Amino acid sequence: MKNEGTIGSGKRFPFLLATMKGISQVILIENWLTGLLILTAITITSLELGVIAFLSAAIGTLTGRLGGGNRESVEKGLYGYNPMLTGMALLLFLEGPASWGIALFGAVIAAAFTASMMTLLQPTGMPTLTFPYIVTTWLLLLSSYRLDTFKLTDETVPQDLSHWKLEIAGKIHWPSAFLDGAGQIFFLQGMAAGLLIFIGIFITGWKLGLYAVAGNIIGICAAYLLGAEHLLIDAGLYGYNAILTALAVGVVFREGTNRLAPYTAIIGSILTVLFIASIDTALLPFGLPALTMPFALSTSIFIGARKMMQQP
Amino acid sequence: MKNEGTIGSGKRFPFLLATMKGISQVILIENWLTGLLILTAITITSLELGVIAFLSAAIGTLTGRLGGGNRESVEKGLYGYNPMLTGMALLLFLEGPASWGIALFGAVIAAAFTASMMTLLQPTGMPTLTFPYIVTTWLLLLSSYRLDTFKLTDETVPQDLSHWKLEIAGKIHWPSAFLDGAGQIFFLQGMAAGLLIFIGIFITGWKLGLYAVAGNIIGICAAYLLGAEHLLIDAGLYGYNAILTALAVGVVFREGTNRLAPYTAIIGSILTVLFIASIDTALLPFGLPALTMPFALSTSIFIGARKMMQQP
Amino acid sequence: MKNEGTIGSGKRFPFLLATMKGISQVILIENWLTGLLILTAITITSLELGVIAFLSAAIGTLTGRLGGGNRESVEKGLYGYNPMLTGMALLLFLEGPASWGIALFGAVIAAAFTASMMTLLQPTGMPTLTFPYIVTTWLLLLSSYRLDTFKLTDETVPQDLSHWKLEIAGKIHWPSAFLDGAGQIFFLQGMAAGLLIFIGIFITGWKLGLYAVAGNIIGICAAYLLGAEHLLIDAGLYGYNAILTALAVGVVFREGTNRLAPYTAIIGSILTVLFIASIDTALLPFGLPALTMPFALSTSIFIGARKMMQQP
Repeated sequence: MKNEGTIGSGKRFPFLLATMKGISQVILIENWLTGLLILTAITITSLELGVIAFLSAAIGTLTGRLGGGNRESVEKGLYGYNPMLTGMALLLFLEGPASWGIALFGAVIAAAFTASMMTLLQPTGMPTLTFPYIVTTWLLLLSSYRLDTFKLTDETVPQDLSHWKLEIAGKIHWPSAFLDGAGQIFFLQGMAAGLLIFIGIFITGWKLGLYAVAGNIIGICAAYLLGAEHLLIDAGLYGYNAILTALAVGVVFREGTNRLAPYTAIIGSILTVLFIASIDTALLPFGLPALTMPFALSTSIFIGARKMMQQP
Repeated sequence: MKNEGTIGSGKRFPFLLATMKGISQVILIENWLTGLLILTAITITSLELGVIAFLSAAIGTLTGRLGGGNRESVEKGLYGYNPMLTGMALLLFLEGPASWGIALFGAVIAAAFTASMMTLLQPTGMPTLTFPYIVTTWLLLLSSYRLDTFKLTDETVPQDLSHWKLEIAGKIHWPSAFLDGAGQIFFLQGMAAGLLIFIGIFITGWKLGLYAVAGNIIGICAAYLLGAEHLLIDAGLYGYNAILTALAVGVVFREGTNRLAPYTAIIGSILTVLFIASIDTALLPFGLPALTMPFALSTSIFIGARKMMQQP
Repeated sequence: MKNEGTIGSGKRFPFLLATMKGISQVILIENWLTGLLILTAITITSLELGVIAFLSAAIGTLTGRLGGGNRESVEKGLYGYNPMLTGMALLLFLEGPASWGIALFGAVIAAAFTASMMTLLQPTGMPTLTFPYIVTTWLLLLSSYRLDTFKLTDETVPQDLSHWKLEIAGKIHWPSAFLDGAGQIFFLQGMAAGLLIFIGIFITGWKLGLYAVAGNIIGICAAYLLGAEHLLIDAGLYGYNAILTALAVGVVFREGTNRLAPYTAIIGSILTVLFIASIDTALLPFGLPALTMPFALSTSIFIGARKMMQQP
């Protein structure tokens, strides 16, 4: 029986549970243990990142709770994943005295943005995915150009598209490219981090794990065959969006006995690769990272199409 | 008793009333006297601006009426505020023989755009705010690059983001920065204009006045503490969007006894400052002004979040 | 009586019929004969373009059918027109070994995108128009900057807006400018192609034909009077979007006895000219073509406004 007074009552540490689920929701999974494994993967890579990841997910969940968000949504971690990614991205790409403050403020905004986007999409039945994280992060990163207390790190340099020259040369270390595909969802590189995240996916369901592996391989191979920059493939940057698309289109938002789901997951993962290339290009003049926009866009196309086509 | 034949029958000069309310709706207020004070503030600053402001608001209202728009919406001035701002902005930022014509044409388009956006947002219950004005103005300003009969004034020069250097130095005259915060909503500077607009807000309700003052102060202070350009703060350009956000989030779109409204108004005003900086940055390569986009975006986030979170 | 087993049963070659209607739906007409005339116009201009046009429309229709799209929508050709334009545009603007593959892949994506956008717009009652084609094409064109197997042709060169200088000089051959207005809807130039398309419109309805002619003339004249580049007017690039707007606003999406329709069609066609100029400008730094965005945007404003204003 549910107690109306507190979230997740009957369970111990209900708020911690919701926060951990918020972390796992980044990969569209509701499982606190998966969340814990991901948090471990982050923390062993960088203590600072681990701290901001936890704090941002917690702040997002708290914002959802105090703001009066739907109890079930809060418990499922749906108010945690956008803020968590926002806090991490802002801390990673910003430097200067105000960067921690902006990162935590961004987490609050991402939580409110999530609720707002739910309002916008409610009549359509479409999911919010990571759009609130992407838009909040892009806008707050751009604001650094006009505010003196924080600025972008050197990783993000605006470039003129007319002077752009593609150089694809470089060596790909396939095993690390594969594992970094999982890690890069959380801005991580390294074997251990990648392994922990894959384990986190497989313990929730072998099917999720298979789709994640398949999406990753399809993403990497499509990028290689289409002639993407080897350095980016090697860093896992062509895998992480494809993993998310494969999970979303192939498993999570699959309704009933959809026999086409495996095919749409494959097409979706390939489309994600093309979108990574195009969004990277479109953002070049602004020096912004693509984040998970390729996944969010590609997935929205297929989920939206499925909703329309499955109507009687 | 209402007469079906004409708008606002029973009142004298119903069309003038609706036009004046259209002017006051820019600051989310329905009060013809406030509209008259604003029009006075504009006209004493620039006769030309006063004429285009009145004509644009009138044309918008007329478009709503002749087009068959909802009678109540037309009477409330909801077809007037986007056209008014569009007409003013186009006349201010364009020069050349066709600029008056484009400004008045833009007012008609902004009225149609308002109705269209109402259609788009109707299922979500979200307000249109000033999005129609912003998009219409941006697009018509951009068209001047390819059409010889009008062109952008020197205030709007496209710049390469990669060559951008932030210079925050400059003296801030706090009292004029404060009053220009109100004036800049209508592209005005000067003590008298600012005072008239604040009076217009206070005569409609002291609470509106307090939120406007608070939003302005929060906007200016947040901009100063985050290290925004002093010249922009001094010109009131960090205050006017924050005023609108504070009014919208704190008072106008507040439902029932929302105890969180003051806090969300404060967070919203701070977020508006960050959005001013980021939208200014994003528009740099196009040489466009941010207009009221920071307000419209920030306010939409909080109004949308409120709608979602107040559901049972 | 309808047989449930196959699409368009009772008619011969139901799939071919739906494909031809898909081709005619580009100009908002459901008529296989019009589609055939258009396909002829394309093929006599370029065999390669004719092949990709047919294949893309067919693939789109097939995607709609296999994906389980609404039978009536598939039969009407609503899954064919966005893929057809996408396939043509991608083949035209891309070169390199993978360009055919990308074009056909793009057609599949445009079909899915169409269904997804139907989901998004369903609560609002707005039509999808050519938005799926535009967004898919822009994104896949941009991806060529980061993928080595295909690249943009020389027609699409990114330019810095700050170095842009407008040169309107050039001779306009009015008759060819007029006929190319129809041809350019399908990226064609030449008297015969233009004539065939106009015939295709007139055989469906003289009213459609009149609006197409009027929209074209208004578009060309407005562009000339506002001072657009003569070379673009001469190539029909200021006419084709205006034709589509006039058809959509003046005839196709006109409900009941709307006496204002002719006026909104005229205003819409003029607005389209301004939008051509502005979208061309906005896309300059990315080197992308405006495609039918001016039409889609302008038409959405007027259809959306009509929906709102005709509510009781």
